[in-house]
Amino acid sequence: MVVVTAKMFFNQGKLKEAENILKELIEKTNQEDGCIEYKSYLSNSSSDEIVIIEKWESQAHLDAHMKTKHFTELLPKIGEMCSKKTEISVYSPLI
Amino acid sequence: MVVVTAKMFFNQGKLKEAENILKELIEKTNQEDGCIEYKSYLSNSSSDEIVIIEKWESQAHLDAHMKTKHFTELLPKIGEMCSKKTEISVYSPLI
Repeated sequence: MVVVTAKMFFNQGKLKEAENILKELIEKTNQEDGCIEYKSYLSNSSSDEIVIIEKWESQAHLDAHMKTKHFTELLPKIGEMCSKKTEISVYSPLI
Repeated sequence: MVVVTAKMFFNQGKLKEAENILKELIEKTNQEDGCIEYKSYLSNSSSDEIVIIEKWESQAHLDAHMKTKHFTELLPKIGEMCSKKTEISVYSPLI
């Protein structure tokens, strides 16, 4: 399994505008092969910050995800609404 | 639901030593009321960095967790093996 946390930092007020795009990304991603979990959460300390917590069966499934049409088309649109680069951390199960 | 990511940064080589304490913390926490998920993951970019991803039914369950014997006794021991403060982020479900 591969676990990813993707922290996104939106320009003030832009998260509301991005929600439809996020919904589309999350719905399509959850239908992908090897996607165990792909959900977004709003930070309790900033209304402009979210994290997407992802769980994939393998690195190959994650790599395939990053080549999908919805990923390659929607991520740049989301990025345009963000104040800084998405912070991506990749993990493997420990305990 | 309340989601927490707790990033821990160990002094070089200390994670191995901390594993038994982490195991105890994780086993006991998973038995707590309202604990949906409480698992640790090793960073793919640093062998001294882990994240604990937690999901709790409510803030009240999380608050109770932080008053448990295992939390109050084991966290300081883990902290002594870390190079800097644990980075805790708290979230609520979005999409």
